Amino acid sequence: MSYRILGICGSLRQKSTNKQLLIEAGRAMPQGVAFSIADLTEVPFYNADLAEKPAAVVRLLEQIGQADALVLACTEYNYSLAPALKNALDWASREPNNALLAGKATALLGAGGGMGTSRAQYHMRQVGVYLDLKFLNKPEVFVNAFGPSFSSEGELVDDKVKQLIAQQMAALLKLVEQCKNV
Amino acid sequence: MSYRILGICGSLRQKSTNKQLLIEAGRAMPQGVAFSIADLTEVPFYNADLAEKPAAVVRLLEQIGQADALVLACTEYNYSLAPALKNALDWASREPNNALLAGKATALLGAGGGMGTSRAQYHMRQVGVYLDLKFLNKPEVFVNAFGPSFSSEGELVDDKVKQLIAQQMAALLKLVEQCKNV
Amino acid sequence: MSYRILGICGSLRQKSTNKQLLIEAGRAMPQGVAFSIADLTEVPFYNADLAEKPAAVVRLLEQIGQADALVLACTEYNYSLAPALKNALDWASREPNNALLAGKATALLGAGGGMGTSRAQYHMRQVGVYLDLKFLNKPEVFVNAFGPSFSSEGELVDDKVKQLIAQQMAALLKLVEQCKNV
Amino acid sequence: MSYRILGICGSLRQKSTNKQLLIEAGRAMPQGVAFSIADLTEVPFYNADLAEKPAAVVRLLEQIGQADALVLACTEYNYSLAPALKNALDWASREPNNALLAGKATALLGAGGGMGTSRAQYHMRQVGVYLDLKFLNKPEVFVNAFGPSFSSEGELVDDKVKQLIAQQMAALLKLVEQCKNV
Repeated sequence: MSYRILGICGSLRQKSTNKQLLIEAGRAMPQGVAFSIADLTEVPFYNADLAEKPAAVVRLLEQIGQADALVLACTEYNYSLAPALKNALDWASREPNNALLAGKATALLGAGGGMGTSRAQYHMRQVGVYLDLKFLNKPEVFVNAFGPSFSSEGELVDDKVKQLIAQQMAALLKLVEQCKNV
Repeated sequence: MSYRILGICGSLRQKSTNKQLLIEAGRAMPQGVAFSIADLTEVPFYNADLAEKPAAVVRLLEQIGQADALVLACTEYNYSLAPALKNALDWASREPNNALLAGKATALLGAGGGMGTSRAQYHMRQVGVYLDLKFLNKPEVFVNAFGPSFSSEGELVDDKVKQLIAQQMAALLKLVEQCKNV
Repeated sequence: MSYRILGICGSLRQKSTNKQLLIEAGRAMPQGVAFSIADLTEVPFYNADLAEKPAAVVRLLEQIGQADALVLACTEYNYSLAPALKNALDWASREPNNALLAGKATALLGAGGGMGTSRAQYHMRQVGVYLDLKFLNKPEVFVNAFGPSFSSEGELVDDKVKQLIAQQMAALLKLVEQCKNV
Repeated sequence: MSYRILGICGSLRQKSTNKQLLIEAGRAMPQGVAFSIADLTEVPFYNADLAEKPAAVVRLLEQIGQADALVLACTEYNYSLAPALKNALDWASREPNNALLAGKATALLGAGGGMGTSRAQYHMRQVGVYLDLKFLNKPEVFVNAFGPSFSSEGELVDDKVKQLIAQQMAALLKLVEQCKNV
């Protein structure tokens, strides 16, 4: 097994709890799987008037194109998606024939208020219908960002959550395998 | 009647069909109602790490605070909201006690593919539950951006759509009146 | 203040936790407000082929018509609405000019799994756009049906939930007042 | 290829346009694929108090269990799912370990108002996350029930829609194949 998996985080904050979940997803990967996290800090809003793609967008699209699967950390703002994450996918969707995204295995996770970003994740699943992403149904990962799952320094310290993320990543790799075999 | 209404557009494109709908909403306003359209071109992604609010955000929040009602042109990308519009509301939601948005009368409209941005508008309605926006239920305004409603130069030329927008704006002003009387 | 409020429950089960929430809503009502709970046990599925309305439907529609407000206990099955509740509203929606439902003040609450029926409630809010229901935005009431909020006999025994329901009912009566003044 | 496919229709009406779409789906099947349509007329609302499963439910669950794939005709009432269809799935979801539904390939289609049941279909997709259905992303089938796609006798007479359904059924059979190979 030699896959590349790309994590994309809805929050731009350095100490984002959602980024912590992605880091844990990376730790859960078996040998041979390269896991990296996209850097969205320089990716501007999509705008059809822009004459050419900014360098940060070009790099992002390359990473998405090379990835065998995506892990989307669905930071929730105001009961829906964080704009930075949605915008990353909007950029990717503009490539001819949806070549970067069509059929790509994808897992969703998130840390947030009481519902653990579930509201944002269900909106993302609707987005994925159009983008033709192949989402894992289960396990779903909803983490309370304000409870004891994170240390005061913002690190994920909850073994049950770590185990759940490991299970989700195992299921994702199995889905990648299936998508390859089609 | 002496109200201020603020239009916010999900698309940053100069010739956006959604901006055309907002311009038409402005034309439909009776005397005494000041209608303006927010400029989002310099508004960055919300990021909790930013030490202070950029000037474009300060101006946007002032406009939202002064508005008696909002008209949101819900450009749809990939079956959900355009990040620039969602981001404008995310910034506004960070003010203490949700003072800028709570109880504000709001109308939704949009031009897009076959469903006329309905998918994005229903996501926005869920956002509005948290933001405590008072949405008009009816009339809903869903316009096909690729049909004959727009001229080849991108101008709205459909009298039925213009009439529908006028009806929606009349309903919005009535809702503003009610919200004031509470 | 002399209002009639009608509760409708998505679950048909006698010992439904959602019915408990409605009973508590009734207890929270001030003097002069008549609160009753609709009986859906004999209401069949809506079917346009039916020649006439069954007696249980006639009675339900009368109750809805006479109600100044609705309280919908949104039992969640499989991440969406319980059919019995949705069906009650579907029947009501068939009256000419949407006369039974248009503009009616409505509160949503529910007891369920970890998310407390939030997924069902957001679907109901979309239904309400078409039905022109005037939903309370806040407070939202999401109760964990499997935790200590209910006794082993299935009675609501959680004072915080009782207080939250009382707050929601107070907000609902205020909304009824506003809707009357329009 | 020797599959069984089960169609389930949200509308109980004899001349339902949604049933027409299912009949067309059956016509589109290649030899060796057995397509049938479930009969929901005697299936009561799910109720946990019922001591045993009614005969019509037993038969429905057998059909679902034997099916290699489902085709759900998502009749839309009031911007969400028709209760009869949702109820059929709710019954099926009660079997131990979700054995009847987990991993089942499923296609969605529908005929309705201007949006062609899209609002109901997206709600169904959320239901499918919990039920672990494997939905086709594309092609989506949204048909206007009130336009020229149906004859005055209610028969589907639109060749483009027929072709689209044929494409969707071909994609469904491919998905069944993949699900079998897992």
